[in-house]
Amino acid sequence: MPLSIAVLGAGRIGKVHAVAITATPGVQLAAVADAHAPSAQELADTHGCRVATIEDIAASSDVDAVAICTPTDTHADLIELFAKAGKPIFCEKPIDLSLDRVKRCLAVVEETGTPLMIGFNRRFDPHFAALKRTIEEGRIGDIEQVIVTSRDPGLPHLDYLPRSGGLFRDMTIHDFDMVRFLLGEEIDRVFATTSVLVDPKVGELGDVDTASVMLRTPSGRQAVIVNSRRATYGYDQRIEVHGSDGMVTAENQHEAAVTLATSSGYTRPPLQNFFMTRYAAAYRAEIAAFLKALETGGAMTPSGADGLMALTLANAADVSAREARVVRLTNDLT
Amino acid sequence: MPLSIAVLGAGRIGKVHAVAITATPGVQLAAVADAHAPSAQELADTHGCRVATIEDIAASSDVDAVAICTPTDTHADLIELFAKAGKPIFCEKPIDLSLDRVKRCLAVVEETGTPLMIGFNRRFDPHFAALKRTIEEGRIGDIEQVIVTSRDPGLPHLDYLPRSGGLFRDMTIHDFDMVRFLLGEEIDRVFATTSVLVDPKVGELGDVDTASVMLRTPSGRQAVIVNSRRATYGYDQRIEVHGSDGMVTAENQHEAAVTLATSSGYTRPPLQNFFMTRYAAAYRAEIAAFLKALETGGAMTPSGADGLMALTLANAADVSAREARVVRLTNDLT
Amino acid sequence: MPLSIAVLGAGRIGKVHAVAITATPGVQLAAVADAHAPSAQELADTHGCRVATIEDIAASSDVDAVAICTPTDTHADLIELFAKAGKPIFCEKPIDLSLDRVKRCLAVVEETGTPLMIGFNRRFDPHFAALKRTIEEGRIGDIEQVIVTSRDPGLPHLDYLPRSGGLFRDMTIHDFDMVRFLLGEEIDRVFATTSVLVDPKVGELGDVDTASVMLRTPSGRQAVIVNSRRATYGYDQRIEVHGSDGMVTAENQHEAAVTLATSSGYTRPPLQNFFMTRYAAAYRAEIAAFLKALETGGAMTPSGADGLMALTLANAADVSAREARVVRLTNDLT
Amino acid sequence: MPLSIAVLGAGRIGKVHAVAITATPGVQLAAVADAHAPSAQELADTHGCRVATIEDIAASSDVDAVAICTPTDTHADLIELFAKAGKPIFCEKPIDLSLDRVKRCLAVVEETGTPLMIGFNRRFDPHFAALKRTIEEGRIGDIEQVIVTSRDPGLPHLDYLPRSGGLFRDMTIHDFDMVRFLLGEEIDRVFATTSVLVDPKVGELGDVDTASVMLRTPSGRQAVIVNSRRATYGYDQRIEVHGSDGMVTAENQHEAAVTLATSSGYTRPPLQNFFMTRYAAAYRAEIAAFLKALETGGAMTPSGADGLMALTLANAADVSAREARVVRLTNDLT
Repeated sequence: MPLSIAVLGAGRIGKVHAVAITATPGVQLAAVADAHAPSAQELADTHGCRVATIEDIAASSDVDAVAICTPTDTHADLIELFAKAGKPIFCEKPIDLSLDRVKRCLAVVEETGTPLMIGFNRRFDPHFAALKRTIEEGRIGDIEQVIVTSRDPGLPHLDYLPRSGGLFRDMTIHDFDMVRFLLGEEIDRVFATTSVLVDPKVGELGDVDTASVMLRTPSGRQAVIVNSRRATYGYDQRIEVHGSDGMVTAENQHEAAVTLATSSGYTRPPLQNFFMTRYAAAYRAEIAAFLKALETGGAMTPSGADGLMALTLANAADVSAREARVVRLTNDLT
Repeated sequence: MPLSIAVLGAGRIGKVHAVAITATPGVQLAAVADAHAPSAQELADTHGCRVATIEDIAASSDVDAVAICTPTDTHADLIELFAKAGKPIFCEKPIDLSLDRVKRCLAVVEETGTPLMIGFNRRFDPHFAALKRTIEEGRIGDIEQVIVTSRDPGLPHLDYLPRSGGLFRDMTIHDFDMVRFLLGEEIDRVFATTSVLVDPKVGELGDVDTASVMLRTPSGRQAVIVNSRRATYGYDQRIEVHGSDGMVTAENQHEAAVTLATSSGYTRPPLQNFFMTRYAAAYRAEIAAFLKALETGGAMTPSGADGLMALTLANAADVSAREARVVRLTNDLT
Repeated sequence: MPLSIAVLGAGRIGKVHAVAITATPGVQLAAVADAHAPSAQELADTHGCRVATIEDIAASSDVDAVAICTPTDTHADLIELFAKAGKPIFCEKPIDLSLDRVKRCLAVVEETGTPLMIGFNRRFDPHFAALKRTIEEGRIGDIEQVIVTSRDPGLPHLDYLPRSGGLFRDMTIHDFDMVRFLLGEEIDRVFATTSVLVDPKVGELGDVDTASVMLRTPSGRQAVIVNSRRATYGYDQRIEVHGSDGMVTAENQHEAAVTLATSSGYTRPPLQNFFMTRYAAAYRAEIAAFLKALETGGAMTPSGADGLMALTLANAADVSAREARVVRLTNDLT
Repeated sequence: MPLSIAVLGAGRIGKVHAVAITATPGVQLAAVADAHAPSAQELADTHGCRVATIEDIAASSDVDAVAICTPTDTHADLIELFAKAGKPIFCEKPIDLSLDRVKRCLAVVEETGTPLMIGFNRRFDPHFAALKRTIEEGRIGDIEQVIVTSRDPGLPHLDYLPRSGGLFRDMTIHDFDMVRFLLGEEIDRVFATTSVLVDPKVGELGDVDTASVMLRTPSGRQAVIVNSRRATYGYDQRIEVHGSDGMVTAENQHEAAVTLATSSGYTRPPLQNFFMTRYAAAYRAEIAAFLKALETGGAMTPSGADGLMALTLANAADVSAREARVVRLTNDLT
C-alpha cells in the first residue's frame, strides 16, 4: 500500500509539495484542500486526486499524513486538529508568530504524540547540507564562528509586512534556525541592531529592512547574521563556518555558469533571484525527508522545538534592537 | 486534447524522457515499447500508460509522436518506419554510425515530410544556452575562436567500445555539433590527432582515448576540441568562445557550491561526474523543445541534417588522425 | 634637490620602508637610527647612507622628514620630538595604546603645525583601494552594510601579548580604521563579544583571541567585524560593502593562481600567510603617498585624528565585550 | 667582492633588469651601454654606474657578466662577441629569427664554453612555476594534454610587424617554449592553422593575427596553443595540464581582486593588460636565477638549445599553416 498524503493549501508552496509527493515512488497524493475552491480543484486535476475539506481529511482513513501549506495564522489550529486526529504533520514555518500560541500548540502535539516536522527548508539545500556534512566529518575541527548572509532580492509587498511578524520573525527566523543547526549548541546572548535604509515606508509600518545580529553560546562560540530586504544582484544566501582546523563556506547560486569577458571586465550573471528557484532542490529534499521519516518511523527534524527556539531568538533580537541592549536568554524569555 | 507521445526503449534515457513528458502540462505518455518486456512494463506502470509493440504504436491513431530511445543500431530503421507512418520523431543521437545509412534514412524522412529532431542534448543545457544567447546578443562581436573541452569521468565498459563507432563518432560527435551550433558557419578543414594514453586495451580494440581536433571555416574562424576518456575530477564540460569584442565561457558544474579552506588550501568538490546528472536540465529542456515544436508546428532543431554534419566531421577527424594529414571537407566526403 | 628622509628603527618594517624610499625617483634615504647599532649599520650599508642618532636627525638640516618605525611605546615621544623640530612625520600605527597619551601627543602636533601621517597601511592595499574607488564612483549607491573579515594566520608570540594592548587595540584597530575609511560617517554605537577559543593561555594573559563586533552610525549604517587570531588557511583579509545599488567585495590573495583538480576536488593554494607579503604593495603605496604629500604639501591621510578615532573604537569595543552591553560613543569616551 | 654585471640596451627591458640587478644583495650594476647615448646616461645616472661601449665592457676586467637587452637583430653578434670574451651571458629571446644564424651563434658559444641563458621569462612566473612544481610533485600523474592560451591585449604597432619574424616567431615562441618546458618530451609533429581576423592590414604585411596549433610527442602526448593578437579583456595568459591523475591550471591575473555585484551581474576587473605588469615578478625571478647560476656555477636554463628548439617549432608551425599540412620534425628541419 502506498503512503497517502493530503496537501492543505493549494498556493505556491502547496503546488511545489504536491509535485514532490507525486514524483516519489510508493507515495500518492490523496487529497487537496483549500478555502478557495477553484485553486483546490486545479491542483487536484493536475495530479488526478480528489478535493476535500479539512474535516474530511482529518476523518479520512485513507490519508496517512498531511502537509500544511496554508497561511501562517491557520498553522497552530491545523496542527492541533491533525495532532488530535493522529495524522503525522508536515507544517510550513512558522508555527505561529506568538510564542505563547506556539507553546500551547506544541503541548497538544506532545500530548497526542503525533509526529510533527517544521519546514525550515534551508537545512535541506544540497549546498548547505554539503557544508553541514563537512563540519560533521570533523574537517574544520571545533566550530568557532558562523556567519550567515541573507539578503532578499527586494521588499515584499508592503501590505504583507504588517502581518509578517516583522523582519526577525519573517525572514531572519530561517537564519536563526540555520545558526542553531550548524552550531550544535544553544545561544545564550543576542545583540541586534536594525535600520530602515531600503524604504521609509517600511519604518512607517513599524518594521525594519536592514539588520545585523550577533549571537553567542555559553562556550564562547559566535555567530553573525547579516540581513537586508534588498539585494540588487539577486537572492544572497551565503554561509561561512570557521573552526579550529579550517573554514567551510557555501556560495551563492548564479542564474547560469557563464562569464562574459570584455573591456569592462569579467561578468557573471546575477544570482537566482526567487526563493522558489534557489531552494527548489531544498523543497524536494525536505518532503523526501518527511516521507522517509513517515515510512521508517524515524524522528522528524526540524521539530516543533526547533520552530520554538527560532522564534525565541527572533523575539530576543527584536528586544535587543529596540532597547539597544544585549539580551540574555533565560527561562522567562523562552 | 493533450498531445500523446510514445517512448520506444525503456532504458536509462527512455525513463528520463518519460518523466519529462508526463511532467509537461497538456502532454501525456501514451505507450511504452521495449524488446525487453519487463522493462517496458515497469516504465508503463510508473506512469500509468500501456505497453505496446512498435507496430501497434506506428498504427495507433492516438499516438501523436514518438521518442526513439533504443540502441543506436535500430535508430535508422525506426526513423524510416515512423516517418512513413507520418508520426513526428524525436531520436537520440546518432542516427547511425554509417554515413551512407544516415543519408538513405534522411532521404526517406525528406520524402515523407515527417518532422525529425535529433537529441543533441547539450544545445539545451541552460549554461550553454546562456552562452549561445550572449553570442547572439552580439556581446562578443564576431566569433573568432571556439574551444570545447570535453572529458568523460572514465572509460565506458570496454565491451561497449567495438560497437561505439570509436571516440569521434561516440563522444566527440557532441562537440562537433556544439562547434557548428556556436560558429554559425560550416567547417571546411579538419586536423586531428589521437593517442591511447588511458588504457592500452582501448588501442587493442582499435580505438583511441585521447584526442585533439582543430577545425577551420572558410572565413578563417578556428575551433579546437580537447577530449579524453578520463578525468579524475569528474565530467569536464567547458566551452570558450572568443570574439572581436570579448570572450564568453561556460564553466563546469561542481557537486556542491561549497569550499573547504584548511592548511592544504581551498578545496571545492569534484565535478558532477555522471552525464545524466550534469545534463539533467538539458534533457528536460530538449523534450520541452520537441513538444513545443510539435504544438506550434515550428522547425525541429537539431535536425537530421545537423546529425549528418556532425557525423561527417567525426569521419573527417578519423581520417585526419589515421593519416596524419589535414582533411578538407568536399562534396565527396559529405 | 631630492627629498631626504631618515628612517628611525631598522627592524622589519624599517627595512621595507627604506627600500621603498630609495626606489623612489627624486627621494633619497639620508640616515638610519636604531638603538641597536649593528642593525642600524647593516641597513645603512645596504642603501649607502649614514647612521645617526635621533638627536642628530632632529637637528640635521639635510633631513626633510622622518619615518618612525620603532617600537610602539616610543612613538608618542618621537612624534613630539620631531613635531617640535618641524620635520614632517610618517609614524607606524598606533600612536600609543593610551588614549590620553595620544591626545597629548596630537595636541603638540597641532600646536607645531607639523604634518603627520599614521601608517594604516591597509588603506593603500591595491585591492582595498579599488574597492574604495568603486564606492566613490557611486557604483553601489548609498552604503548600508560593511563586513570586514580579518583573521591572522596564527597567534603572535605569547610574550608579545601583554604589551600588545589586547586584541582590539593590536589587531582590530586596523579593521576599525577600515570601517571608518569606507563608511564615511562616524560610529556612534559599538557592540562586541569576545572569546578565548584558540589557546587558553591567551585568556590567562587577560586577552582574547576571537571576536565579533557590530558598529552603527547615526544614520543607521551598519558594520560587522569578524576576528580570529588563527586561520589555518592563511591570512584572511576580506571586505564586503553592501549598498542601495549593489555590493562590492575584496577577495583574499592566494599563494599562487593555480588550481589542482583531482578525485578529491579542486584545490587552490592557501592564502598568503604573512602580513608583509600580503601587504607588500600596500606598504610601498603608503610611503609613496607620504612622499607625494611631502612634495605637494597636500594633506596627510590617515591623520593623527584617524589614529585617535580607531583607538577610541577599540576602547569602546573592549568595554562592550567586558560589560556585555552596547557602548554609545559620547564626548567623554573620545 | 660583489658580482658585477653590465646591461646592454637601456630600453624598457634593460631598465627592468637594471633594477633587479641593483636590488640583489652582493650584486652590482657595473656599466650600461646603448647606441642612443642619452638613454644610456639616464639609466646609468639612476643607478650610479658608468656608461661604456660594448667594446669597453667586453674588455673590462671588472665586468663579470652581461645582460643583452638590445634589439633582436644584434643578439647573435653580441652573444658571439661576449662568448669569445669569456663573459657569461643573459640574452633576451630570441637569439635570432634565422635558424641558421642561431646555429652558428650557438656553435661559437659551445666552442668557447661560455655560459648562456635565454630570457624565456614565463618559466619564472610564480604562478606557472607553481604549476610546474605541482606536476613535478607527481600530483597529476603522467602528463597527457597541455593547453596554452595566449592572447595579447592588442596588436603591436604595425610597423613593428615586418621585423617581428611573424606571429609564431614573435609571440607563439613563448608558448612553444612553455609547452616544451611542461611536457618534458620533444615534439615530433606540428599542425597549425592561422587567420587574419583582427586587422586586414596584418595580412597585407604578410603576417597573421589568430592561430591555433596542435603538437604531438612520440609517446602520444598532445599540446594545443591558442593565440590571438587581440583580447579586449586584457592580457590572456592561461595554462592547463591534464594528466592521468588530475589536472592543474594557472589562471589569469586581474587588475584587482574585487567584484562588483549589481543588477547587471557580478563583475571583476579586466586582466592586467601589459606584459611588463603581468610578468613583473617573472622578470625579477629570471634575473635572480641568472645571478644564482653565475654564483654557483650551476647550469643556465633556459639554454641556447631551448632557444633553438622554440624557434624550430615556430618554423614548423609556419610551414604547417602555409601548406595546410602536418609537419614532422626531422633532422633536416632542426
